[in-house]
Amino acid sequence: MNQSENQIDQILKRGVAEVIVEEDFKKLLLSGRKLRLKEGFDPSSPDIHLGHMVALRKLRQLQDLGHQVVLIVGDWTAQIGDPSGASVTRPMLSAEQVKANAKTYLEQFFKIVDKDKTEVRWQSEWYGNFKLEDVVRLSSKFTVAQMLARDDFAKRYAAGKPISVTELLYPMLQAYDSVMVKSDVEFGGTDQKFNLLVGRELQEMVGQKPQQVLMVPILVGTDGVHKMSKSLGNYIGVAEDPSEIFGKCMSIPDELILQYFELVTDIPDQEIADFKAQMENGQVNPMILKKRLASELLTQLYNATAAQEADARFTRVVQRGEIPEDMPECRLENGQNTGVIDFIILSGLAKSKSEARRLLEQGAVEINSEKISDQNTPVKCGDIIKAGKRRYSKAI
Amino acid sequence: MNQSENQIDQILKRGVAEVIVEEDFKKLLLSGRKLRLKEGFDPSSPDIHLGHMVALRKLRQLQDLGHQVVLIVGDWTAQIGDPSGASVTRPMLSAEQVKANAKTYLEQFFKIVDKDKTEVRWQSEWYGNFKLEDVVRLSSKFTVAQMLARDDFAKRYAAGKPISVTELLYPMLQAYDSVMVKSDVEFGGTDQKFNLLVGRELQEMVGQKPQQVLMVPILVGTDGVHKMSKSLGNYIGVAEDPSEIFGKCMSIPDELILQYFELVTDIPDQEIADFKAQMENGQVNPMILKKRLASELLTQLYNATAAQEADARFTRVVQRGEIPEDMPECRLENGQNTGVIDFIILSGLAKSKSEARRLLEQGAVEINSEKISDQNTPVKCGDIIKAGKRRYSKAI
Repeated sequence: MNQSENQIDQILKRGVAEVIVEEDFKKLLLSGRKLRLKEGFDPSSPDIHLGHMVALRKLRQLQDLGHQVVLIVGDWTAQIGDPSGASVTRPMLSAEQVKANAKTYLEQFFKIVDKDKTEVRWQSEWYGNFKLEDVVRLSSKFTVAQMLARDDFAKRYAAGKPISVTELLYPMLQAYDSVMVKSDVEFGGTDQKFNLLVGRELQEMVGQKPQQVLMVPILVGTDGVHKMSKSLGNYIGVAEDPSEIFGKCMSIPDELILQYFELVTDIPDQEIADFKAQMENGQVNPMILKKRLASELLTQLYNATAAQEADARFTRVVQRGEIPEDMPECRLENGQNTGVIDFIILSGLAKSKSEARRLLEQGAVEINSEKISDQNTPVKCGDIIKAGKRRYSKAI
Repeated sequence: MNQSENQIDQILKRGVAEVIVEEDFKKLLLSGRKLRLKEGFDPSSPDIHLGHMVALRKLRQLQDLGHQVVLIVGDWTAQIGDPSGASVTRPMLSAEQVKANAKTYLEQFFKIVDKDKTEVRWQSEWYGNFKLEDVVRLSSKFTVAQMLARDDFAKRYAAGKPISVTELLYPMLQAYDSVMVKSDVEFGGTDQKFNLLVGRELQEMVGQKPQQVLMVPILVGTDGVHKMSKSLGNYIGVAEDPSEIFGKCMSIPDELILQYFELVTDIPDQEIADFKAQMENGQVNPMILKKRLASELLTQLYNATAAQEADARFTRVVQRGEIPEDMPECRLENGQNTGVIDFIILSGLAKSKSEARRLLEQGAVEINSEKISDQNTPVKCGDIIKAGKRRYSKAI
């Protein structure tokens, strides 16, 4: 491995919130040794999103320089549930749920990192046969006060909110993962800082060189307010349909555009700086930049063709109001006697009658490109029904 | 089992600090069902003492009514170390130390309880194969705040003293023991209250009837100040040599006499009340009562003969200053040229020269019943050397 200091500096700066210890990490990267880059993921939901992508891209950049990614599938910690940064105890997941989630999540993971340079390790490899004496040995190395010092624990404890004893085990288990895989560097979001540092401590206690820690910023979701998260519904999933990803990118607030370019694309810094200047001077319509962002993302997650198609489709359907070439079809159950409200529900364009009526009242329902307002309008075979911005169904 | 309510009341009152729930426990005892009486002991030291005997005697009394004692050998919790009532983290013991301690401790246990009506269960039976998932399941049932509510934890936490995460596991493991042996009643000192109640809670959570809890008072040690404890050196061990037990009983402060009668002998309440009156009126020399106490104890722990012999020996040696019939012998290494200081060390009567000199200066050293003060006095074959109150060695 022969890499320029410039290249390394770029990787350690762009889209990075904090490195502990930066100087040591840089030395390691310049040493020519193949480093073990650890990242753990709890498959607590079946999908990963752009928020996860920020750190994954760092891993990919370092893989491209020849380093080894060690991906920990947190099949045990997912069962416990880590509330890092959250204020409540998460429900515990069953082993089956976790396994099912892990499957899709691994597929999605390899949309970003290079599968061939990744060692996948399941925690069950060491926790499957972890005994009480191992728990005792591990938990005796840390004090309750040390654990309760973690921001979210401290806040919950002070507020009299319950913290289960199991939750105190979480940071230690994550730390023990680092020992088991002999991690040189661990990656995570800034909300993982406490856990990442416990890993350093534990490695040192057992005689390993403490891992370096690289923390990435927390990506704000499409609502422009909260951390991107599946449960808040403000996310863009890496495995979503291209037109869905494209549409979601178009819906982000303008002030997120530059941050998304920085954190989840390879657009050069200089170009991002130019975008910034253009936006400030009103020289560019933010929609143009969002389209560029969406295309960049789709090229990474799918390919250039998918990006072009999604772009064309968006322009045609949403911007020009044209009807797409292909769309889901829905068979009329009662021949010619289905009303528009029933059809909207039958076809899945809305989940309830009240939602269907609301769409109608908002003027968001069209039959064959004609806006309708009468909820008794019948739907006939061959009709194309549009409900909401980008959703179509053909009656057959 | 057919027992009078009076008998039961007596067992539940004398030498008992608190019963939870007294009414329920009494009902159980009157139900005629054979109850499972649990007591756990951590073999954290090789000996048990009168402090332990208080609860053991309760078990014995109930065994005599036909109930089943279930003795838990805490070979796992002993390794963790419970600081109940203490203010510091105990050092963790090795499995080997614990096993060796458990051996002597079981022998001593059966000096008080009936071996034939005792089921001995080692925690390793269930903790030997206790896995991480079991720890997770157990620890998720309790919150950190619940555990930190325990008096000693709360004090240490408030004082900024370390509490290892392992220590939080202790009460849960003790509680799980109750589930495993389906305990009807658990016995312990008042300092165990928290742990005993966690047992009730856990049993209820898993659908068992919550155990009753019988707590005995904490026995004050021979210093008259602190809880009797091996590490404080204020204890009377149940397996100590009869003359040692006798001597130690004679050395307790007068104000402990009645409490010891109540907690570790079968002397009837009325007789103890008489002793009390006699002491208050100066009608009895407390030494007479201490001799009685010592005899009662030795009869329980050894037999009546041992009690009589110890009494006679004490009277002869200590009270009349007579020389005992048998004593350890020590061979003179340099023929006739050993000085008294060297002999005292050689024979083990003192551990260091400075201790030997101090005894000499205090006038506590005699050769053949003559007090000596010159540290150069030689010791000859056949001399009987006394150092301290009851310690002799014969030069051969």
